[in-house]
Amino acid sequence: MLTLDEAGLNLADVAAEARRRLEPAHWDFFAGGAGGERTVRANEAAYTRRWVVPRVLRGTGERDLRICLLGEPVSMPVLVAPTAFHRLAHPDGEVATARAAAEAGTVMVVSMAATRGVEEIAAAGGRLWFQLYPQPDLEFTAAVVRRAEAAGCRALVVTVDSPVFGRRERDLRHGFVDLPPGLACENMRDTDGRVRTIEMDAGLGWERIAWLRGITSLPILLKGVLHPADARLAVAHGVDGLLVSNHGGRQLDGALATLDALPGIVAAVGGRLPVLVDGGVRRGTDVLVALALGATAVLVGRPVLWGLAVGGAAGVRHVLDLLRADLDRALALAGAARPADLGPDLVAGPDLVAGCGPVATVVGA
Amino acid sequence: MLTLDEAGLNLADVAAEARRRLEPAHWDFFAGGAGGERTVRANEAAYTRRWVVPRVLRGTGERDLRICLLGEPVSMPVLVAPTAFHRLAHPDGEVATARAAAEAGTVMVVSMAATRGVEEIAAAGGRLWFQLYPQPDLEFTAAVVRRAEAAGCRALVVTVDSPVFGRRERDLRHGFVDLPPGLACENMRDTDGRVRTIEMDAGLGWERIAWLRGITSLPILLKGVLHPADARLAVAHGVDGLLVSNHGGRQLDGALATLDALPGIVAAVGGRLPVLVDGGVRRGTDVLVALALGATAVLVGRPVLWGLAVGGAAGVRHVLDLLRADLDRALALAGAARPADLGPDLVAGPDLVAGCGPVATVVGA
Amino acid sequence: MLTLDEAGLNLADVAAEARRRLEPAHWDFFAGGAGGERTVRANEAAYTRRWVVPRVLRGTGERDLRICLLGEPVSMPVLVAPTAFHRLAHPDGEVATARAAAEAGTVMVVSMAATRGVEEIAAAGGRLWFQLYPQPDLEFTAAVVRRAEAAGCRALVVTVDSPVFGRRERDLRHGFVDLPPGLACENMRDTDGRVRTIEMDAGLGWERIAWLRGITSLPILLKGVLHPADARLAVAHGVDGLLVSNHGGRQLDGALATLDALPGIVAAVGGRLPVLVDGGVRRGTDVLVALALGATAVLVGRPVLWGLAVGGAAGVRHVLDLLRADLDRALALAGAARPADLGPDLVAGPDLVAGCGPVATVVGA
Amino acid sequence: MLTLDEAGLNLADVAAEARRRLEPAHWDFFAGGAGGERTVRANEAAYTRRWVVPRVLRGTGERDLRICLLGEPVSMPVLVAPTAFHRLAHPDGEVATARAAAEAGTVMVVSMAATRGVEEIAAAGGRLWFQLYPQPDLEFTAAVVRRAEAAGCRALVVTVDSPVFGRRERDLRHGFVDLPPGLACENMRDTDGRVRTIEMDAGLGWERIAWLRGITSLPILLKGVLHPADARLAVAHGVDGLLVSNHGGRQLDGALATLDALPGIVAAVGGRLPVLVDGGVRRGTDVLVALALGATAVLVGRPVLWGLAVGGAAGVRHVLDLLRADLDRALALAGAARPADLGPDLVAGPDLVAGCGPVATVVGA
Repeated sequence: MLTLDEAGLNLADVAAEARRRLEPAHWDFFAGGAGGERTVRANEAAYTRRWVVPRVLRGTGERDLRICLLGEPVSMPVLVAPTAFHRLAHPDGEVATARAAAEAGTVMVVSMAATRGVEEIAAAGGRLWFQLYPQPDLEFTAAVVRRAEAAGCRALVVTVDSPVFGRRERDLRHGFVDLPPGLACENMRDTDGRVRTIEMDAGLGWERIAWLRGITSLPILLKGVLHPADARLAVAHGVDGLLVSNHGGRQLDGALATLDALPGIVAAVGGRLPVLVDGGVRRGTDVLVALALGATAVLVGRPVLWGLAVGGAAGVRHVLDLLRADLDRALALAGAARPADLGPDLVAGPDLVAGCGPVATVVGA
Repeated sequence: MLTLDEAGLNLADVAAEARRRLEPAHWDFFAGGAGGERTVRANEAAYTRRWVVPRVLRGTGERDLRICLLGEPVSMPVLVAPTAFHRLAHPDGEVATARAAAEAGTVMVVSMAATRGVEEIAAAGGRLWFQLYPQPDLEFTAAVVRRAEAAGCRALVVTVDSPVFGRRERDLRHGFVDLPPGLACENMRDTDGRVRTIEMDAGLGWERIAWLRGITSLPILLKGVLHPADARLAVAHGVDGLLVSNHGGRQLDGALATLDALPGIVAAVGGRLPVLVDGGVRRGTDVLVALALGATAVLVGRPVLWGLAVGGAAGVRHVLDLLRADLDRALALAGAARPADLGPDLVAGPDLVAGCGPVATVVGA
Repeated sequence: MLTLDEAGLNLADVAAEARRRLEPAHWDFFAGGAGGERTVRANEAAYTRRWVVPRVLRGTGERDLRICLLGEPVSMPVLVAPTAFHRLAHPDGEVATARAAAEAGTVMVVSMAATRGVEEIAAAGGRLWFQLYPQPDLEFTAAVVRRAEAAGCRALVVTVDSPVFGRRERDLRHGFVDLPPGLACENMRDTDGRVRTIEMDAGLGWERIAWLRGITSLPILLKGVLHPADARLAVAHGVDGLLVSNHGGRQLDGALATLDALPGIVAAVGGRLPVLVDGGVRRGTDVLVALALGATAVLVGRPVLWGLAVGGAAGVRHVLDLLRADLDRALALAGAARPADLGPDLVAGPDLVAGCGPVATVVGA
Repeated sequence: MLTLDEAGLNLADVAAEARRRLEPAHWDFFAGGAGGERTVRANEAAYTRRWVVPRVLRGTGERDLRICLLGEPVSMPVLVAPTAFHRLAHPDGEVATARAAAEAGTVMVVSMAATRGVEEIAAAGGRLWFQLYPQPDLEFTAAVVRRAEAAGCRALVVTVDSPVFGRRERDLRHGFVDLPPGLACENMRDTDGRVRTIEMDAGLGWERIAWLRGITSLPILLKGVLHPADARLAVAHGVDGLLVSNHGGRQLDGALATLDALPGIVAAVGGRLPVLVDGGVRRGTDVLVALALGATAVLVGRPVLWGLAVGGAAGVRHVLDLLRADLDRALALAGAARPADLGPDLVAGPDLVAGCGPVATVVGA
């Protein structure tokens, strides 16, 4: 159990406590982003520009936060985003995170850069998806996919926003280029036990998605789609879901805030696929706004790491519990009994004022 | 009488003096809001984004601030909003507030969470309305309504924005969860003298409004309507007025600023009901802007508490006098002899620039 | 002559030096405004939201800043606004100001609240207009008009934005309510030498303008028009010019910035009258922007007082010279040889982006 | 080679190191601008208001940054803008800058106010263009053009935004009016070795462009075009390219940010001429955004001077390498293999939200 001080009343409290506990270089690795970190800031800021227009007297009673994702129930529309190197935050690493996600009844997306192997993480008992950077070595890629399948992962989340590495100045200043001794990307182990380096593949194209489609029956989601034209292509290529993401501002600094991109993606998809979104979610109202604008669920990354740093599995659980309670309260106060009750008429914002629709819709026109 | 220092030239002065006098936990209880307090700030900020385009040479002479509300005259379009626990601010509590409101010739809306009984408050002699959180126990609710009627209250203000409690982090940090010994919600006393806890009812729906309509002949206003669709429903259900409110930012953090919601509600109501608004009014120009955008009157909450903390009834009177004089001056300088002379052409603002109408109109379309 | 330190490179320098020299209460009397001083700030801020889109290769050669106003030539489109109590800034008071304006070849608008008599001011030799608060005592008003005519004033600038006094909190805090002994509003002297108090007339209407029209052949300009409907009425009532003004933010706090009001007034007037504007002009580019948006000339108030405080007539001259040189340079750099070459296509700004025209046009539609 | 500290991770680092090394008056000469420096700030700020909407899965592989400009290949769409007085930054002056540009395979635009002669600069071996202030003395102007031609310059960049000098307050405060002894504008030497002063010509018009067209076969670009009408005239007058520039904010303070002007110029030109842009480019994403909005290339001025101050040719090279690597990464992350792959659908921004197109398009309509 967390002490009261550790727990924190809100995610900003948890972040502050995590910062106190982490090595500065590790805090910065988690907190930082690419370039001038405009996009890191923009992700959070985008939520502060939206306002909720609640309904009243809807007699909602108890709320039901459950959603159905890829045909399976999830306890709430808040999932654990894939993030690297959990053992930098806590010795238990991704195993602790998985335990908390399992207790919370939600999905954890295991990072390809996890510091625990997917089998060990799966042993925690929850529902896992697996995040994949498709490697130029197709055989190795296929082996990783089979390993994820064997561990029981229920979906592949294919990162498509990383043809090259983003340049993270905080890491360069710290000289943080490698994991400390004893830690490794366990899911990159080769058959001989050697740990491969994750390669970014600048040649990655739609044909690789088709190839993946051919080697696995797992649902495939694309992570990192911001442009409506790509969303339409994704539908045409038969993928199973989209994750609107800018990699937490860690790849292309200056990329559009994910909440600003969401409506354009939702419009382009037209209900044919679930649309998830990550980046900047810190309050239950943020979740509500993303859902009202068409997201099926949100994913949280840094807050999970903060919780992990503060209290291991209990800390992650606290973070997920805070968000669940906050979302439950926000739904009630907005007159919604369940996520499906939310719609865009509940949200007002600067880009809606002019009555010309949101940013990305225009962009993708 | 107040000393000069206590009096203050404007409401910010009165607030500063109140803060010096109040226990920090009590100041924070009055000042704070839910979550990150975005909506608390937004309520005030919304007024700073509107500008008055005054008329000249209208020969208005002396102004007449009186309005007619629910068929009865009120000395000015500024009423006292329902707020809890006045005895935290001053030993005389709601009785002092009522005395000031009576002297000022305006309506005080007595809170269901008042620390004086409605009969005692009514003895101060002014015109009272009664704010009601409909309780799941219908019999008790009916008893409270009868008690308010018996005390002479002239309208019911039914709070509809609180199916659950807002989470107020300042109070949680202070551990402020209950009234100090000796203070109680006097209007929640049962027949046996026991004080009930006010329950938020997540099941509250329109049928309860109909039930209230059946047990009392008092006019019924709904407090907490922000969405135009709810305003239309309210008209259809035969209520007698609307109070555009987000509970001073104390329930749903992220809720739209009330001034931003006002035009949409006014348009939806189409003149069929009086529309009141609370939240963020600090200057006479603020009142003018709200009236010009279609409000019949405004209510002030925190400023009344500041005045009460600073000087009891005299302090509240000073606050109401400041607002009255400020509104009178603003009307004159805008070329209006009376509230009815104001119209939306007198107000310019960012959401009007694009010529597409204000936020909430779009929202509710 | 000014020392280098006194002179200052720009008006902000001059203001800083003036602040060092003036009594705080007098600095605040000049600098302050009504209420929360939103409009004081908005006047300057409005210019920072407009951008110049210059023309090139126009071969303008030397610029000619002269304009024709009410049939008479003025050396530049920058006039001296009427402001009160110049002897608080410098012993020579309005006489020094008039001498500087005369040297600069521009018009000084003498304030009804001048601390030198109009005859003494006129003796400085320049072209004067006279600012008038029409007094309820018509006979006295007529006497003042005759006195201004006799002193050689060439136009009446009738203030129409002051049916009551604005409430200036800085003055209230200082207890600054009256001129120091020895100083008086010399233009308010009665036939018996007694100095009358300037009365604000809440009953002032268009019929008084007609009455003024009947007692003088001087051109009549209305000072304080912000609403397009009033501009149309002014045309209909046969006045000779409009001054878009909010009294420097000293009367109605929250009034629209004058630059934001200007396009609406210009559109309403449709070229039938000269439109002047005051408030917030601090740089040559500001003048250029106002002219490009349709103003015939601008007036400067506070900068003149700063110059006066710093160096008497030489200080005022320095201020006017700075503005003249700055405007000359700005015209050249924008590709304009003279004020008449400027048009709205040279200005970009946030309220033009949406292609729906500026604020006040919408407001007055 | 630069030490690590000198090198800096980004241009802000290089600027900070340059500031430590330069005389304050020289730092301010490079950093400062005209008037209140609104336009200096606006140039950088304009980039922070645009967001990239990247494409994914484009299989771009290695990027190719090369572009073709005026019929010749350039290694990347980042050129060295003409700036004055490089020997204030480093003893090697423009020769060092040219060496770095040559190594980087890009164009250096030699300033008419260079402190090394164009022949000496040309000896460094790279591709040069020559920036020209057309002088009233046509013979001398022709001599300068012949000298630039003889030195091998491949284009003339004719500055058209400077009919008069901008007023730079930082220089006035420092009393910085002239080059230190030993330094001179070497390209202004007369046949007798005397150095002429560069004159700004307020009479400069299109006929002088025609005259230039007649005396040289070099391509002619106009530097300083912001208004779409001038862009259309430039096309009609047969110039070979446009450089959207406000002289780094050093001439007309209040001039539109270049990025805000770009789309209007691009639309006016309609692909008939290459459109370059300078001002405010500090990151690879900035280059990407300018290209996506229609620029053929960007020019950087102050960053080159910072690099020069920090490490001579190596410092400039470091700056160009940083930008090249940053642009390469940004292209990859936006799904573009080469500059030509970029289009306006990749950019979102406030002035695009309303769906009414960008600022300058409206302005020039």
